[in-house]
Amino acid sequence: MTAGAALDLLIKKLPSKPPPKTKVPIEDSLGLICAEDIVSREDLPQFARSTVDGYAVKAEDSFGATEAMPAYLGLSGEIIMGQKPDFTLSKGLAAKIPTGGMLPMGADAVVMFEHVQTVDATTIEVLKAVVPGENVIQAGEDVKKGERVVPEGRRIRPQDIGACTGIGVTSVHVYERPRVSIISTGDEIVPAAASPAMGQVRDINSYVLAAMISEAGCVALRKGIIRDEYVAIRAAVEGSMEDSDAIIVSGGTSVGTKDMIARIIGDIGDSGVVFHGVSLKPGKPMIGGVMHGMPVFGLPGHPAAVSVCFEIFIRPVLDLLSGLVEKFPQRARACMKARLSKNISSPQGREEHIRVVIEQRDSGLWAVPLLGKSGLITTLVKADGTIVVPLNINGLEAGTVVDVRLF
Amino acid sequence: MTAGAALDLLIKKLPSKPPPKTKVPIEDSLGLICAEDIVSREDLPQFARSTVDGYAVKAEDSFGATEAMPAYLGLSGEIIMGQKPDFTLSKGLAAKIPTGGMLPMGADAVVMFEHVQTVDATTIEVLKAVVPGENVIQAGEDVKKGERVVPEGRRIRPQDIGACTGIGVTSVHVYERPRVSIISTGDEIVPAAASPAMGQVRDINSYVLAAMISEAGCVALRKGIIRDEYVAIRAAVEGSMEDSDAIIVSGGTSVGTKDMIARIIGDIGDSGVVFHGVSLKPGKPMIGGVMHGMPVFGLPGHPAAVSVCFEIFIRPVLDLLSGLVEKFPQRARACMKARLSKNISSPQGREEHIRVVIEQRDSGLWAVPLLGKSGLITTLVKADGTIVVPLNINGLEAGTVVDVRLF
Repeated sequence: MTAGAALDLLIKKLPSKPPPKTKVPIEDSLGLICAEDIVSREDLPQFARSTVDGYAVKAEDSFGATEAMPAYLGLSGEIIMGQKPDFTLSKGLAAKIPTGGMLPMGADAVVMFEHVQTVDATTIEVLKAVVPGENVIQAGEDVKKGERVVPEGRRIRPQDIGACTGIGVTSVHVYERPRVSIISTGDEIVPAAASPAMGQVRDINSYVLAAMISEAGCVALRKGIIRDEYVAIRAAVEGSMEDSDAIIVSGGTSVGTKDMIARIIGDIGDSGVVFHGVSLKPGKPMIGGVMHGMPVFGLPGHPAAVSVCFEIFIRPVLDLLSGLVEKFPQRARACMKARLSKNISSPQGREEHIRVVIEQRDSGLWAVPLLGKSGLITTLVKADGTIVVPLNINGLEAGTVVDVRLF
Repeated sequence: MTAGAALDLLIKKLPSKPPPKTKVPIEDSLGLICAEDIVSREDLPQFARSTVDGYAVKAEDSFGATEAMPAYLGLSGEIIMGQKPDFTLSKGLAAKIPTGGMLPMGADAVVMFEHVQTVDATTIEVLKAVVPGENVIQAGEDVKKGERVVPEGRRIRPQDIGACTGIGVTSVHVYERPRVSIISTGDEIVPAAASPAMGQVRDINSYVLAAMISEAGCVALRKGIIRDEYVAIRAAVEGSMEDSDAIIVSGGTSVGTKDMIARIIGDIGDSGVVFHGVSLKPGKPMIGGVMHGMPVFGLPGHPAAVSVCFEIFIRPVLDLLSGLVEKFPQRARACMKARLSKNISSPQGREEHIRVVIEQRDSGLWAVPLLGKSGLITTLVKADGTIVVPLNINGLEAGTVVDVRLF
């Protein structure tokens, strides 16, 4: 099964219930998912404003004005920043106005300072005609009363926060971050702080996963290292079903454990294992399942597989659980174009993710494949990103321009 | 002056002192800047491990083995996950080993299960030869004792955390996040929670800036809205020099205020204003300065200019103050290719940043320019990203493939 088909299958089995909501101050909402359509209760701005420093005029008074044949206007009162002008502009007059200042009644355009010559204390020459509305933001031009400013499902960006404060929205409903349990298995795994005996290694994957979960905007719950025993792992999985929105079982690299994790998912059931094994490298033995509506993943133990499988399978599911509505089907990630430094062969029918270092040479940027074993954490650390050899391709030739998806 | 030249000039005037350090648990270090070279005190792994489920062998015992002509090996003890084998493998023997298991003394390769046939309880057939080291991660192959695992200056990624826990590093020195003061000016600006009178508008820019600062990994200090008066703004700037690593003065859109901010920077001095005005749209009136070693920016008041100027001028300076060592000169940001939906003209000698919406049509992705005034916050909210018309180009034709830098 292809990775894409496996993911689609899993997603179809998930219940479509929106996450719980919570209310936060708008300035604390960055990166959270908006849980409501934010609709403006008012126009923004509430009055016509100048976009330049200049003179508010009736546009028709400037018609035909040129440097050779300027229009002469008398001076009316001055407009004070932040205040409503206390006069109405009469025909044949102009009023000095700062950028952002409120247009007086009677004015419908602003002539920039650069196009005005002062004649004396009461008269100016306008050197260039303006049309009605020129250099003006009209009342409601930024936001109209009743207009939706930020849609439900958006990951809130800095400008979304600014639009909210502009219309007086100082708090917002957001979806609660999904909680994701990480269960590490493996009789050889000891905690990071321990001194491993011969035959033992320290936990790597649960820390990498916790950080990736946190980058995805979710809350990681590290549930410790569980012995490779059916009863112990099943108890950890069932316990995590109580306090999580998704479960990741990492490792299970020892003989039979992969099958044991699939068996536990199947035994808990409804609907059990959705896929077990995909045409993907690294990550072939990946398991995906659903247990009573909760997504569960069995990840291969190799660090490179953990990283690839997280991006392909887990992150899209976490986005869904987060309430995120993505505009584009594929998550956009920072990419860099580079030329491949050597031939890569990859059998047809397998999607292959290859870690690369980007090198700046005189001839441009080159992507140099790191062909280390996928069991090594340091090839991931040395890499700048990954390139993908798609399913239906035999490999890539040296010199091909590739998209490096940066970490 | 071009934006690039202006930024270079400013950066040259900044003192090159590293930020203060602090120590954090490794699991809390994601996204922070590593303040030390992390060097391993040991080999990882500390013993040779199998990368597959199979049989540990002496490779030479398998030489010449094929399906037609298998090599017969006797069975030695079994290897238990997480334990040191209590035997040495003799010539002509094989030992069952799980993925991640420790190779016994005497073994130098692993034959995968798939290439083995069981004859009886004490004998197997090896159907494929292995070379020494095949399917084995050697002691120290991932990390060698004394090797640098994570360099000083790196923004810590999930895999960097994993590499640290793998070698038993459970806490790490990181640089403290720079504190950036935001001083809003403008007599028309009222707080987000206020009801603006006619002529007044709510604060947008200080919230947008605070969120962008936080995205850049720094701490935003919002210093409130200051009246457009020399004494008040100067006091706010001098006060912020006490508790900040950089200062942003936002707004100052009213007549004369732009010059007032430049004058304050000049009066505080050492070295004062570095640039004032750049060939950039939006963002032309941008001010950059240094005061006694502290960078200070005077931002135009239009929201679109705030966003563009932050990315171009402020973010690179904050990266520098953060202690970040970037591998690539230009910050890689998520990009999407799309075709421009209409002609855009832009005078030569000006770098122009245009907000676009990306539309998925039958003919592919199209970038549709949002030509709203740069004073509107909602064009930024509706936009998916920006495209850049470089300095030396007159414009772009409809149909051109452009890189949309996503927000």
